Amino acid sequence: MKKNAIYAQSGGVTSVINASAAGVINACRDYGHQIGTLYAGENGILGVLTEDLIDTTHEPQALIDGLRYTPSGAFGSCRYKLKSLEQNRREYERLIEVFSAYNIGYFFYNGGNDSADTCLKVSQLANQLGYPIHAIHIPKTIDNDLVITDNCPGFGSVAKYVATSIREAGYDLESMYKTSTKVFILEVMGRNAGWIAAACGLASNNAGEPPHIILFPEVPFDEDQFIAAVESAIDDYGYCVIAVSEGVKDKNGVELSSSQATVDDFGHQQLGGVAPILAGIIKKRLGVKYHWAVADYLQRSARHIAAATDVEQAYVCGYRGVEFALQGQNAVMASIKRVSQEPYLWDIEAVDLNQVANHEKFMPKDFITPDGFHITPKCRDYLLPLINGEDFPPFKNGLPDYVRLKKNKVVKKLAEFEVKR
Amino acid sequence: MKKNAIYAQSGGVTSVINASAAGVINACRDYGHQIGTLYAGENGILGVLTEDLIDTTHEPQALIDGLRYTPSGAFGSCRYKLKSLEQNRREYERLIEVFSAYNIGYFFYNGGNDSADTCLKVSQLANQLGYPIHAIHIPKTIDNDLVITDNCPGFGSVAKYVATSIREAGYDLESMYKTSTKVFILEVMGRNAGWIAAACGLASNNAGEPPHIILFPEVPFDEDQFIAAVESAIDDYGYCVIAVSEGVKDKNGVELSSSQATVDDFGHQQLGGVAPILAGIIKKRLGVKYHWAVADYLQRSARHIAAATDVEQAYVCGYRGVEFALQGQNAVMASIKRVSQEPYLWDIEAVDLNQVANHEKFMPKDFITPDGFHITPKCRDYLLPLINGEDFPPFKNGLPDYVRLKKNKVVKKLAEFEVKR
Repeated sequence: MKKNAIYAQSGGVTSVINASAAGVINACRDYGHQIGTLYAGENGILGVLTEDLIDTTHEPQALIDGLRYTPSGAFGSCRYKLKSLEQNRREYERLIEVFSAYNIGYFFYNGGNDSADTCLKVSQLANQLGYPIHAIHIPKTIDNDLVITDNCPGFGSVAKYVATSIREAGYDLESMYKTSTKVFILEVMGRNAGWIAAACGLASNNAGEPPHIILFPEVPFDEDQFIAAVESAIDDYGYCVIAVSEGVKDKNGVELSSSQATVDDFGHQQLGGVAPILAGIIKKRLGVKYHWAVADYLQRSARHIAAATDVEQAYVCGYRGVEFALQGQNAVMASIKRVSQEPYLWDIEAVDLNQVANHEKFMPKDFITPDGFHITPKCRDYLLPLINGEDFPPFKNGLPDYVRLKKNKVVKKLAEFEVKR
Repeated sequence: MKKNAIYAQSGGVTSVINASAAGVINACRDYGHQIGTLYAGENGILGVLTEDLIDTTHEPQALIDGLRYTPSGAFGSCRYKLKSLEQNRREYERLIEVFSAYNIGYFFYNGGNDSADTCLKVSQLANQLGYPIHAIHIPKTIDNDLVITDNCPGFGSVAKYVATSIREAGYDLESMYKTSTKVFILEVMGRNAGWIAAACGLASNNAGEPPHIILFPEVPFDEDQFIAAVESAIDDYGYCVIAVSEGVKDKNGVELSSSQATVDDFGHQQLGGVAPILAGIIKKRLGVKYHWAVADYLQRSARHIAAATDVEQAYVCGYRGVEFALQGQNAVMASIKRVSQEPYLWDIEAVDLNQVANHEKFMPKDFITPDGFHITPKCRDYLLPLINGEDFPPFKNGLPDYVRLKKNKVVKKLAEFEVKR
């Protein structure tokens, strides 16, 4: 009897995680002679735990095709990390219970570091319990911080968005600085790893082109050196464009943005945003006119400017993940391998999740210039292929025509399960 | 003898003001038998005053074609408003002096309200002094607040950008709210007029689709009503997406963002941003997880997602402005007329600058729903054609391949002129 499969999305969404979903779904349909029904967890692993399952069989092919160009997590994602086996064996056992009830032989978990860890643990416990499962991790994270894989699906599109945005804002400043704004700050995501901030550097093809300064979480913030760099850019070019990673820290490892838990005149607490903090420093020290932007969710959902390379890799990671499972693989991640730099060629290979889970990939030292404020040519070489190509969504009435799935739920057959949070 | 022409860009730039420049330049080239050299003021009217003039003749046609898809003001813009004739007759007389020295018969001023006023005054003073000039105003403002013209070049592209962005962020929230962020706030530009905020409403095709709340500068902010609306959206849909105009004011007419001139723990003053203010209110009153984004310059320079309608109108306003001048018009604006709603048809007509200067067009009452939190179908009908069509720039190495002009300066022949600021 054919085994069924479960797919779930995990963690912060991206503009291409649905392309991975489409890859998984299409592969399951193409290999329908070997795989039975593909279920999806509603709101990620939570839906698997609570038996809130969507039968993907009922989704028309046109909607699945639409997933490829629709940002966000179409089945719902969740920020919920399963604890260790020792701390919460109950939840892992529940997963196996659900798997068993639905004759699940394949588990496709689409997420970042946490989900790699969960995927590995599910595989381990199933093994302990003698339940046969093929647990496959499909990588997804805008942070690009998974190890082994050359890059992570989701990152290339954010990279393209932030580099495009800062180039555009740079042109704006270049035409206005004579009588108006002299400093512009763009805050991008990245708590620990500076990959997204680094991508902003791609906008600068020639010396003097924005951004002039990039602040990485890997480089301790030094106010005096920063101010000197801003002054230097204004001296040399008349203006200064800055990309800052939200996770920039001072020399004591304290995030700059944490100093912003201030209370305004109305007694309202304000939180978040390192860009306005930097703006305050610049105002105080230099007194020049500034502007700042915080891209926030805009960057990770900007499917309208996704990188074609990224979309394709996300899709193929999903598709190949299913093939890995059918080949008998277990506890592996569909990992992207850079086969050649010029021309850029890549392939997907299965790598042991033990090598991936609980590791984090930071910017290498030789990707950051000695002054700590920009990217090196080596970093450019790494990043450039990842933002390559355009893959615009269809537009209707002037706006991207994204899809919403039908999401037909299965009728529950197990006892209720309470997720303790 | 053929008269020469001067073109200048004014005020905050847009993603299509260069399309207007391309229209002016191409028209001057096409009508080269009637118009001599087209000069451009470097950094807008300042360059005209200080005789910093760029000879556009030296710009290759390929670069002019590139202007059509390059955001920002390629010749430099400026935030500099000429005072009244009584207060600063010296500057107006200097303009005439420069016009005279360069045998200028045509003055094309590309900007918003202030430049409409300047353009009119230049025409009036030239008339008083017996200097023959054809002063033509080419409209440009993301704020869409010029009167008479149906809409303003620059607005449609911002509108498309913000509506696309909030739709994308809305999808993001929709897939995450179950375990994570429940409120998302996007701050958009608009100090006095809520047109850009209104455009966010286009993302919502059906009831319940984000944005759920729009805050306009025309509607006094009432904290209790706002919180009730946020709660209602969370109750009904599980999450709430908010678009807020930077210029939202309380019932006393005080901008909410002005309460944010706070000082953080390091003594750094923070300025700007109504989105974090709202986030603070929501945190205090509802305690739910939120995210906020401030689009700032990203929105007005986002040429990568410009509206084809907007690009075309910007170009044609420039081109027709030259034709109006050649037809003997003076002190007029190239104004967009909506000829038909369905199909959307438009034309450009010359309107008297006396009707335009020093007026400001706000959102009509019947464009805002009775509760003050959304746009009406009438507003949708007005806005939709303006964001229509895509006109992607060429891409190179994954990024928009924008141009920079050569900007050959003319050799000065007049006495130096000091601009007193």
